Order: sequence, then C-alpha cells, then structure tokens
Amino acid sequence: MNITDIRTKSPLVLTYANFVTPQFVANVVNVVGASPLMSRELAEFKELAGIANAVIINTGTLQKVEINDIIKLSQEAYQLGKPVVLDPVAVSVPFRSKAITQFLASGHVDVIRGNAAEIAWFADIDFASQGIDATGKGDVIEIAQRAAKKTGAVIALSGACDVVSDGQYTQTLDINVEQLSSIVGTGDALSSLIGAFIADGLKVPNVMNAMATFKLAGQKAATKTNQPGSFTNQLLDELFVIDNIDVQNFVKESVLNHG
Amino acid sequence: MNITDIRTKSPLVLTYANFVTPQFVANVVNVVGASPLMSRELAEFKELAGIANAVIINTGTLQKVEINDIIKLSQEAYQLGKPVVLDPVAVSVPFRSKAITQFLASGHVDVIRGNAAEIAWFADIDFASQGIDATGKGDVIEIAQRAAKKTGAVIALSGACDVVSDGQYTQTLDINVEQLSSIVGTGDALSSLIGAFIADGLKVPNVMNAMATFKLAGQKAATKTNQPGSFTNQLLDELFVIDNIDVQNFVKESVLNHG
Amino acid sequence: MNITDIRTKSPLVLTYANFVTPQFVANVVNVVGASPLMSRELAEFKELAGIANAVIINTGTLQKVEINDIIKLSQEAYQLGKPVVLDPVAVSVPFRSKAITQFLASGHVDVIRGNAAEIAWFADIDFASQGIDATGKGDVIEIAQRAAKKTGAVIALSGACDVVSDGQYTQTLDINVEQLSSIVGTGDALSSLIGAFIADGLKVPNVMNAMATFKLAGQKAATKTNQPGSFTNQLLDELFVIDNIDVQNFVKESVLNHG
Repeated sequence: MNITDIRTKSPLVLTYANFVTPQFVANVVNVVGASPLMSRELAEFKELAGIANAVIINTGTLQKVEINDIIKLSQEAYQLGKPVVLDPVAVSVPFRSKAITQFLASGHVDVIRGNAAEIAWFADIDFASQGIDATGKGDVIEIAQRAAKKTGAVIALSGACDVVSDGQYTQTLDINVEQLSSIVGTGDALSSLIGAFIADGLKVPNVMNAMATFKLAGQKAATKTNQPGSFTNQLLDELFVIDNIDVQNFVKESVLNHG
Repeated sequence: MNITDIRTKSPLVLTYANFVTPQFVANVVNVVGASPLMSRELAEFKELAGIANAVIINTGTLQKVEINDIIKLSQEAYQLGKPVVLDPVAVSVPFRSKAITQFLASGHVDVIRGNAAEIAWFADIDFASQGIDATGKGDVIEIAQRAAKKTGAVIALSGACDVVSDGQYTQTLDINVEQLSSIVGTGDALSSLIGAFIADGLKVPNVMNAMATFKLAGQKAATKTNQPGSFTNQLLDELFVIDNIDVQNFVKESVLNHG
Repeated sequence: MNITDIRTKSPLVLTYANFVTPQFVANVVNVVGASPLMSRELAEFKELAGIANAVIINTGTLQKVEINDIIKLSQEAYQLGKPVVLDPVAVSVPFRSKAITQFLASGHVDVIRGNAAEIAWFADIDFASQGIDATGKGDVIEIAQRAAKKTGAVIALSGACDVVSDGQYTQTLDINVEQLSSIVGTGDALSSLIGAFIADGLKVPNVMNAMATFKLAGQKAATKTNQPGSFTNQLLDELFVIDNIDVQNFVKESVLNHG
C-alpha cells in the first residue's frame, strides 16, 4: 500500500507494544489513516489477528512470562496470512538475545525493523566490538543483507541510511534526519507504520515506502523546528497531510536499488 | 459539578487505565483542575476508592487475569458510594464481550461511555451488520436509550452527535468536531473527565456537562489548528482555561432535551 | 555531572517506570543527552544495572507482585556500585506505605525524590494532619533534613522550594515555577534526570544541579507559554538547548547553602 491506499482502506494494525511509547505509536498509525489496536492478552490474539491487517511485535519491555505469548501471536498471524513485523529493541542484551532466539525458533516473522546495532545481532556481526561504523553505507547494507539471509525475513534497518533487504534485493535511502533520534519512540512507530504499508503484500519496495514516508515527514518537520518537543507534534502533523506524489518523487530521487 | 466546581474542589479521579493513553488521560484530568490517580493493584483499591471521588474502569487493554480485579474495584467503589464509569473499548471483540458480560453480572457500573458501535453492543443492536449509520441522530438516540434500559446505567455515547441517556431522559449535542478523532485517547480522556463532573452526583445533565466541556474545548482548539499533533496540545490548553459561562451558553444553545 | 558532561558522556539511565508517564520520562532523559532504558523484568536487572550508570525506581503504579523485584533491582545496582533513586509516588496511601517500608528494610536507596507530602512520610511527620505548609521554606528544610537522617539517603524534595539534603548539608532553591505542576510526570522525569546527574558520584550539589537544570528549563519555558499543552513541549525544547553556564549562574544566584 501507499499512503493514499492506507487513507482509503484504513488497515487495522495490531501492535503488541512496549509500555514506554504506545500512545505515540498509536498516534502515528492513526494520523496516516490506519487504525491502531493494542493488546497483550493471549486469549484474544486469534480474534484480533483475524480482524487485523498486520501484526507488530515490539519487545522493548518484554517480560519472561510474555515470550510464549508473542510466539503464539506470531503463529496465529501466520496461520491467518497476516504479516508479522518484529521490533527487537536492544536485542543484544543477553536476556533479550535469549528471548528473541526462542522467538525465532518457534515463532514466525516477516519483517525485522531495527537500528544498525540491533540488525547486526541477527547478522551475527559483533557490532560494538568490531567497531563497524553504523553511518557507513557499505556496512549497513552488508548487515541488512546478512541478517536477511540468516533469518529469511525482510530486514528494515533504519538510521542515517535506511536499508531494506530480503537478502537478494536491497534498497537504500541515504538521507539523515537527525531530529528523528532526538525523541523516543520513532523506531517503535516506524515498525507499526511498516505494518500498515505491507497490509496488502510484503515486498521490499512496500517496506521502503513506509520508511521513505516516515523520513520525508521527518525532513519536512525538521524544516519547521529544530527542537524535540515541537518536532514530535510537527512530525504527526506532516504524516497527517503528506502527499503520495511527494513520497513517490522522494523515492524516485533518493532511493537506490542494489542488485 | 461544573468546571468551576472542579477547579475549586479538585475531585480525585481514580482511573484503572489502559496502557496506551494513561498520560494523556491524566493530563486531561489534571488541566481541568481535578487530581488524576491510577492503579492496577487490587490490594489498594479499597484505600484508593475511599479517597477518590469517582472511579473509571477502562478495558482498552484488559487481560483475563484482571477481570476479577475490575469487578472488585467496582464493588469497592459502590460500597463507598463512589460513582463508577466504564469505558468498554472495542467491546464487540468476543474476548472483550465475555469479559464485559462477566463484569456486568458481578460488578457495578453507573455510567458507560463509548462510541456508537460500543454502546450498540450493550443495546443488543448489531451495529456493523445492520448498517446503522452512527452519524444519524435518530439511531444514536435509540442506541443510547436501549443500552440505558438494558444496563440500568447512564449512557454517554460520544461521537459526531453526543447522546446522554438514563433510558427516560435523554440529551443530545449534535455538533461534530472531527479533530477529536484524529488523535488517540480522546474517548479514554472523556470517560475520566466524566468522573470529575459526576463526583457530586450522577445526573444526565452532569454527564452532558462533561461532554459539552470537552467538545467545546475541541471546537475552540480546532479553530486554531487543523492538525493532530498541534491539536493535542491545543486541546489541553483550551481545557485549562475554558470558562464555565462559555460552557453553559454552549449547553443552552446546542444541547437538546428529549423526553 | 553537569549538563555538558551528560551530553558528552551520555550516561545510561535505567528506570523502573510507572505505566502513566514513561514516554515523557524517557524523552526528558533523552533530550538532555543521556540514554533512557526501561524494564520491569527481574531476569535482566543484573545485566541492565551492569550497563546502566544510574537506576531509578518509580513506585507510582507498583503492584504487590513487583515489590520483591524492585528490592532485587536495588540490590543488584548497589552491588555494582550504581546509584539508586527512589520516587515513592503517593507513599502515604497504606498499601504503598507498606511496600516502601518493605523496600527500605531489604533494598538499597541513595536518593529519595518526592514532593513535600511524600518526603514528610519518610520523616515521620504527619504532613496532612499537622497542617504543615509545604510552601513554607523552614518546614520543607526540616522535612528534608529529618527524612535524610531517618533513611540515610540524600533527599530531593521538589516543589515551590526545592530542597536537597543529606542530613548534614542542605541546599535550597526557592523559586516557584507553577507550570511545572500543570502537567503530569514532571516529578517522575526529575527523578530520572537526577539519575543522569549523579552518574559520576552522589553529592548534594550534583542532585541540586539536576533540580536547578529542570527548574531553570521550566522557568524559561514558562516565559514562552502559560498553558500546559504547549508547556510540555517547550520544557523539552528548553532542556534540549539549556546552557551549562546559564545553569551554573542560576545555581550561584539562587541556591542557598544551609549548614
């Protein structure tokens, strides 16, 4: 889907959210015209996955007792043909590494959205100790491609240079909007936004479309304010009115295709 | 109470909140001059209901293990003579239907605040399949009245046309402020706001007073901004300064009495 | 640390947050240049305390089953030499009194941040019934000093007049910024901010530095807007750009030393 389709069809985006940023995430989903829904109750996952168009699993504040729940949620979504986006916040912390390993072994995932350090974990690349420069475009492409091959998922690596890769086909968007990291929750919101964009089919360009929409809105917001408090609201305002033609032009001008 | 009373007496509003919008809800309660308090701990419900002036139960992200807790909370409030407002988010999802049915059977409720689809569930009207137009004023009046008769609660149906009904006496406020649905949490906030307005007695006009205050603040905010990010803050700002005389004039001009 | 050090060293602030205001707290920590991290999972406390520079325990929505978890978290932090800040929201409610008593008996705490009523509980002063005027400077100094002596912790009493005391040495900042209480979460945010400022050593002036930074940012924000919605964002914006020299001048001019 593109932003116009989302406004017309209003896909239902079910997010298993962390407890830090759920309102911002729900607002981002809402302002683009999709419908946000959140739950942590196993007993309703089948019902909710049934009416949802995409399922997002954010492990930013996951607890041990929840690991089986997110596995089950991903399985329900898979059986119902709904795409699953995983947001593995701070996955390199040992407890979280174990939880995500368990999730990958028994659960199902279609897209993994994370920053360079998080995606490097899936690629078995020791991000911190090898001193890989996350701002180097070559590095982040390699990280994303390797992670895609290892997991079988489409990788959405967000940062100064956004990379989307299914292991074979890779797209990059090398435009940095610093303000996007001045506030918390932009990564979480992007993961749920990707859910809306892949509601009618998972392809690398659909995922990149979500990332380009978010980054363009961020770029527009940044021309109006440099400061984090005002930027938060400005970002929501830009997402609310962003024009599909502007997004498509932005993609044409700025997104590069790699093999 | 009206907004002036709330500013003077600062009623304590205890909300069993969902995990998505608690900060916005607390801010709305706070800016009108009431005191927000939130808890999910059964062991302190009696104490907190004792010092609270109203109790709000929001089931937006309710879990199975919490059903008995909210029943108990409503019972404690009832025994202490504190009004209970229920916000049954997405009640027509089967798991939630069962939870609310269980709550209605053993718990206590004075006001149910929901949108037309949610209130229709209490009225045993199949909202989706019968194609009832939630923007039709006749329909929402019927939905609210039937739900009031079936539950014995005062119904606060919010939307393009707000309806408050105890089954016999009904008031409507047929002014749409679209921006109120451009952000998440406005329904949740309205439910807790109603708690403040009924802290000194539950009557249909008190509930309508809360809805009119919220809608007028929304209308004022909408004259200053059309966009969701800025609207959120503007709404809080308008609620902070809204004048009781303005609200009373708004009620006189725009609220209709039915039977 | 001062604000410049925080921007340079980006200390990791681990907060055991309440569920009402975590995003605002995380944003405050983030905009000053520190790194916010939140968790409620016992199994990762040791790992997270290991990489954190300070640990904040906020009991604003604590549940019974969590009491042992926060005790354990404080012990892990202590053994790893990381300072622990306690934010005992509404501690005088009996359930919460018991929980905090249990925490003080088995856990570890370096700083307690609360308003006058909350700190009075630790000082064994019956705040409400004795009619102590929380705006009276003499009273809040006595409350803070007594609480420090009774608990052995550094007390950070925030309000119209901020007081920091270790029982022997006391500093006050007697400048009221009313707008700081017009929004929820400012106390929670201040507690986590203190964590960043004491990451390299716990001293009364470091804690006061955090409080002065927050109050000066609030004062600057209040010159630009009087209303709560806009104030929230303005406060974040001011914290983002606040200058260390301005803070130090503010401290020199406005902070008084007592004994």
